[in-house]
Amino acid sequence: MDTPVASLELEVIHQAVEKHLARFFNAKAREPADAHLTDLRIPQTLGEFVFAGGKRLRPALCVLGWQSAGGSGGFDAVIATAASLELFHAFALIHDDVMDESDIRRGQPTLHRILAGRHADRPDPDRLGANAGILFGDLALSWTDEILYGASLTPEQRRAVAPILFAMRTEVMYGQYLDLLATGRPTTDLGHAMLIARLKTAKYTIERPLHLGAALAGGDKALLRGLTAFAIPVGEAFQLRDDLLGVYGDPGETGKSTVDDLRSGKHTVLMALALARAEPADKRLLRFLVGDPELTEVDAARVRAVLDATGARSSVERMIATRCRRGERALTGLDLPPAVTAALREFARRAAVRIS
Amino acid sequence: MDTPVASLELEVIHQAVEKHLARFFNAKAREPADAHLTDLRIPQTLGEFVFAGGKRLRPALCVLGWQSAGGSGGFDAVIATAASLELFHAFALIHDDVMDESDIRRGQPTLHRILAGRHADRPDPDRLGANAGILFGDLALSWTDEILYGASLTPEQRRAVAPILFAMRTEVMYGQYLDLLATGRPTTDLGHAMLIARLKTAKYTIERPLHLGAALAGGDKALLRGLTAFAIPVGEAFQLRDDLLGVYGDPGETGKSTVDDLRSGKHTVLMALALARAEPADKRLLRFLVGDPELTEVDAARVRAVLDATGARSSVERMIATRCRRGERALTGLDLPPAVTAALREFARRAAVRIS
Repeated sequence: MDTPVASLELEVIHQAVEKHLARFFNAKAREPADAHLTDLRIPQTLGEFVFAGGKRLRPALCVLGWQSAGGSGGFDAVIATAASLELFHAFALIHDDVMDESDIRRGQPTLHRILAGRHADRPDPDRLGANAGILFGDLALSWTDEILYGASLTPEQRRAVAPILFAMRTEVMYGQYLDLLATGRPTTDLGHAMLIARLKTAKYTIERPLHLGAALAGGDKALLRGLTAFAIPVGEAFQLRDDLLGVYGDPGETGKSTVDDLRSGKHTVLMALALARAEPADKRLLRFLVGDPELTEVDAARVRAVLDATGARSSVERMIATRCRRGERALTGLDLPPAVTAALREFARRAAVRIS
Repeated sequence: MDTPVASLELEVIHQAVEKHLARFFNAKAREPADAHLTDLRIPQTLGEFVFAGGKRLRPALCVLGWQSAGGSGGFDAVIATAASLELFHAFALIHDDVMDESDIRRGQPTLHRILAGRHADRPDPDRLGANAGILFGDLALSWTDEILYGASLTPEQRRAVAPILFAMRTEVMYGQYLDLLATGRPTTDLGHAMLIARLKTAKYTIERPLHLGAALAGGDKALLRGLTAFAIPVGEAFQLRDDLLGVYGDPGETGKSTVDDLRSGKHTVLMALALARAEPADKRLLRFLVGDPELTEVDAARVRAVLDATGARSSVERMIATRCRRGERALTGLDLPPAVTAALREFARRAAVRIS
């Protein structure tokens, strides 16, 4: 971050959220239900997954939302809410990795792979790992409520926060379902790709964390609308960048492969544009290669050539830039504390130009 | 039920819970997040699963717990809590069926099979169905909170109910994980089989629903302990009966196969006793057949013969009878309204002798 104040605060937030989560997992390991199961190390395993990495975007945005609405002092409720959001995200990642059969997350084995590894002596450790992954995700989702309950919100805070939290959960699950159904057969339907980006990313990653924080601090509807005007375009830009990184990124930086999205046949704006614009022969090539689980690096290079030649890649770059500008413009209309405006502006820039 | 009063009330409860759930799913279908996804019929699909069957044991016990503590009038909070429990159970069944790769539930295709059927044109409908099943289960779990939030509990009710609800969720998930790890290699460890029965069934199905209802009506710790003294033995009996029905039941009545438990190698008290008592040759037979996914009806008959010959089956019958008596004795020590005592006694008897 450019601004030392916001930067310092984000670091403080980060530490406080980590501490809150660590305390929660430690307490879980001491609960009666765990007494006969200590050697299974269930809370510890979930904790290790949470602490293995992650940018903590949602907690940071939650606190920025809180500051947007003039929140100050008495950090406890916002930190607990932010910690709950991060555990929710852990749940989403765990189930996502099971569904995608992903082996690697944040440069480490995924949780279901770790769990499969613990039972390598079983007849079908992969299936056992996937099933245990479903259960650990379920636990993480359940425990988000316990963290939030422990935040001791006032009745007004609860009334403000609950509908936003409920909306966020439903939106991201609907978005995941749309993504699941669209994956494997990308089409020219740009609007559908954008709807998925909006539900899965713009709303879930940016808008709702800001809203939650703002609602905690008593932010009114006008502020929430203003934050939406920032969050949606920036969140769309964030997902569009993610789509580009999924095909063109440096795996050493992103921690992700650049063939997985092509192999699974992810329906993205990038692909929808390319399919809509490609010449018949290139279109056939895309239809043939994208979604092929055996797609090679050489095939990927041919797909990238089509994405370049059709101008799909440069269009997506322009869409990102436009959206970030739109997000930044929305900020100027909001009367936020200068440090918050600076931090959100920096966030929008990073969403646009990040390499990981 | 023997007692017309309790019987009438249970029917009223059942109707009220169904109505509450139906209203909830209808409202979900009208939410903004659903606007672009109406043709996916997500809330409708979940609703159809919930209404396809089920004994509604947990809602009934929740209301009996409430009546135990003298709850009367103002049914709304207890009905909403009971409805939330039933949706939680739907979540548990959906994920359980995905993990077990079950095709049939309550005589109907399981939810992930229905979802797979909708996408039979896809390259891998089974995997898509399983993944969609994970997501639909996640939605059901998330929505339990919304139903409970909509119950408008007083702050005292929330404080009383929340820790019980949190404990219930963690217990059943821990129990599922233990079950997952134990399945495929049953042992002579009777205590472990009983621990799974206690977490997965006695606490989840009987004790916690009673506790939740009692806590809503302001029941004190002594009452909760008294309900535990009833619930744990009766719940263990319930699971022991389930284990017998899983091997000896009439599929026409139970809606379940009598080879699935043997094929998956479920670690039950029945099997632990048989393994502990069998002669070396029979022990080898059990080790060889139980857990074999290809086990035939003829194999199953050989396993049943060993379960009979070792006296494992009759021991389990005796354990059921002992536990039901213990549960009924616990009732006499509790000063409950007579209709509630009668309904709980009837419940204990059914748990012991039911055929489905």
